[in-house]
Amino acid sequence: MKIRARDIWLDLEKIRKVSPLVHNITNYVVMNTTANALLAIGASPVMAHAVEEVEEMTSIAHALVINIGTLSERWVKAMLCAAGKADKLGIPVVLDPVGAGATSYRTKTCHDLLDVCTPAIIRGNASEIMALATGEAKTKGVDSSDPSDAALEAAKLLNRNTGSTVCISGAVDYIVDGDRVIYVENGHPMMASVTGMGCTASALCGAFAAVNPSFPVAAAEAMTVMGIAGEIAAENCKGPSSLQIVFLDTLFCLSRDDITCRVNIGENQ
Amino acid sequence: MKIRARDIWLDLEKIRKVSPLVHNITNYVVMNTTANALLAIGASPVMAHAVEEVEEMTSIAHALVINIGTLSERWVKAMLCAAGKADKLGIPVVLDPVGAGATSYRTKTCHDLLDVCTPAIIRGNASEIMALATGEAKTKGVDSSDPSDAALEAAKLLNRNTGSTVCISGAVDYIVDGDRVIYVENGHPMMASVTGMGCTASALCGAFAAVNPSFPVAAAEAMTVMGIAGEIAAENCKGPSSLQIVFLDTLFCLSRDDITCRVNIGENQ
Amino acid sequence: MKIRARDIWLDLEKIRKVSPLVHNITNYVVMNTTANALLAIGASPVMAHAVEEVEEMTSIAHALVINIGTLSERWVKAMLCAAGKADKLGIPVVLDPVGAGATSYRTKTCHDLLDVCTPAIIRGNASEIMALATGEAKTKGVDSSDPSDAALEAAKLLNRNTGSTVCISGAVDYIVDGDRVIYVENGHPMMASVTGMGCTASALCGAFAAVNPSFPVAAAEAMTVMGIAGEIAAENCKGPSSLQIVFLDTLFCLSRDDITCRVNIGENQ
Repeated sequence: MKIRARDIWLDLEKIRKVSPLVHNITNYVVMNTTANALLAIGASPVMAHAVEEVEEMTSIAHALVINIGTLSERWVKAMLCAAGKADKLGIPVVLDPVGAGATSYRTKTCHDLLDVCTPAIIRGNASEIMALATGEAKTKGVDSSDPSDAALEAAKLLNRNTGSTVCISGAVDYIVDGDRVIYVENGHPMMASVTGMGCTASALCGAFAAVNPSFPVAAAEAMTVMGIAGEIAAENCKGPSSLQIVFLDTLFCLSRDDITCRVNIGENQ
Repeated sequence: MKIRARDIWLDLEKIRKVSPLVHNITNYVVMNTTANALLAIGASPVMAHAVEEVEEMTSIAHALVINIGTLSERWVKAMLCAAGKADKLGIPVVLDPVGAGATSYRTKTCHDLLDVCTPAIIRGNASEIMALATGEAKTKGVDSSDPSDAALEAAKLLNRNTGSTVCISGAVDYIVDGDRVIYVENGHPMMASVTGMGCTASALCGAFAAVNPSFPVAAAEAMTVMGIAGEIAAENCKGPSSLQIVFLDTLFCLSRDDITCRVNIGENQ
Repeated sequence: MKIRARDIWLDLEKIRKVSPLVHNITNYVVMNTTANALLAIGASPVMAHAVEEVEEMTSIAHALVINIGTLSERWVKAMLCAAGKADKLGIPVVLDPVGAGATSYRTKTCHDLLDVCTPAIIRGNASEIMALATGEAKTKGVDSSDPSDAALEAAKLLNRNTGSTVCISGAVDYIVDGDRVIYVENGHPMMASVTGMGCTASALCGAFAAVNPSFPVAAAEAMTVMGIAGEIAAENCKGPSSLQIVFLDTLFCLSRDDITCRVNIGENQ
């Protein structure tokens, strides 16, 4: 089975029509851009992190995105509550393990989350996925490293151990599910100079997972849309800050033609 | 009494001259854009949420804006302290009940706040105002719904119960105070695709309430300025993200002519 | 010794090459723009504030930036842990005393931080520096006031008392270290209408201090780069919000020529 431009377009249209509620428990740095990206794609973002309300909020959501970029004790508690609730209700969870491997607190929190839920999608950079899978990679803060054979092997291992679709983003994005590997080549290097582009990718994974129960497909679609919007933005900006603006405008305006002409996906079985 | 372009302009000039200090206890998503909007209009924003300092900060402020978009236990405590202090000192309070009705925690927090202060202005979307007034509306996360007759009735009820000017924002904004209803028709639909535009409206209500003790007038002026800047921005942007940028630039540059030509206000007694 | 355009350029190139990890414990309002400014200059930002992980994160960082803009109890604890750790390891600390003097909690927190570390650089506006040095200035929220003779004297006193390079930013920036005073005249008034420009300046001080152990030079270089990017942005924007965008794009694109032509630094011994 191949993912075609047409499928991406249909799911994008579905998001715009259904406007799925995506509950985000995410980091302080990206809350604004995450919310704007979800609005731009047509989804309906909500942020809530109090233990007193996360389960209630998750219950009315169509997807839950958990991003550990700026953790603290009470946030971890709320993430665990929300993740457990989502798991119980069959609401897809996206986990973004920001900085896993950089501190033991982050790695441990990810493992605790994996104990209470099976994420639909785990999306991170190569270092983070390797840290989660093998406990061995040491990230430099929250920076991305390019995927490599070792990273791909780590993704396969993490997928086997968790049952979650695993997505490594980088110059090429790898989406791993069982024996299937999807490669998304869309994107632009300047996207790495904008904070939170990875977090936005995870949020969009949530939006696509809300409308498409095949999570590897949802992840590939989200990464392709990210990459296409990034390419269009890079052609129409003067630096990373205007790239961010044009990127969001582009998500909002994305047309069938934009997608048809640009999809760059490969698959291995 | 009609609100005229001239009155709006005079109060805008007053804000630019006096630069009132607006103390915000608001949500993580919009802190940056709220602060920038207040600066752009000529006010002086400050954010402080620690129980240890909120009363001291509120005491030197000219308005207090409380926005419950991303609550947690300690923030609620601080909001209650600050609101009580402002009430005692006669400093106008604006309450933005983000997501009231979506979770019981949010609705309860609003009621607790209404127990310790009488806001000058309560500004929310139709669902939020209905949830506060009747406990019956169920919001979909923090999304807005269009005002309707039912919403207007809820606003009147909430105004009677609290004594606060109640503002419902939507395609048309309704400002309710006693038997008076002001309608603001300025604005643009794309504003709903930018996160935090409602929160910005509440912050501007705070700036206007700081210079004009007639709160229904202050609310109408704030909503009109929001709407005018949104219209100008919508004519000069390529999507919601550039709309946000042009919107803030426009607030900063707003001239007497911009206001004179565009005000679109009606009133019923 | 004079600071020359060539020195600034060499240190900027060093940042771009080394990509120093700058650990920020900063306020909610500016996290996104701070991270983007550090990325734009070529550094690698990380945000982490949990007591459980700050020491581990600081240990792998090349500079620590502490900004007290939105304090609370647990954040203060984490700041003290991280500052103590950085001090012990010889990692340069930049302290941004946002709103010192506005509330006693903020002033006290700064003094507590100065008890556990000797910052490489303390950067604030005139009111904040005066409040820290003499306990007498009363800020109006977090707004800046123009430096004056009194402020310069306060900077000298604070430098003597702490051993830290002290930087007052304003229309002219003053950098005080021992008997040396460096004046940076670059910049543009509209920068004061963008929230967090001072916070960005502190973050850039961290990036320069990470590659240049002469902290007065690092501070002067950071302030000059800020000012130059602000001037270029002011010439190419329509208001403060587009100024912010062009400012960040300009940091990313800054060329040797931009610096050569524009440096405006004076020194007194």
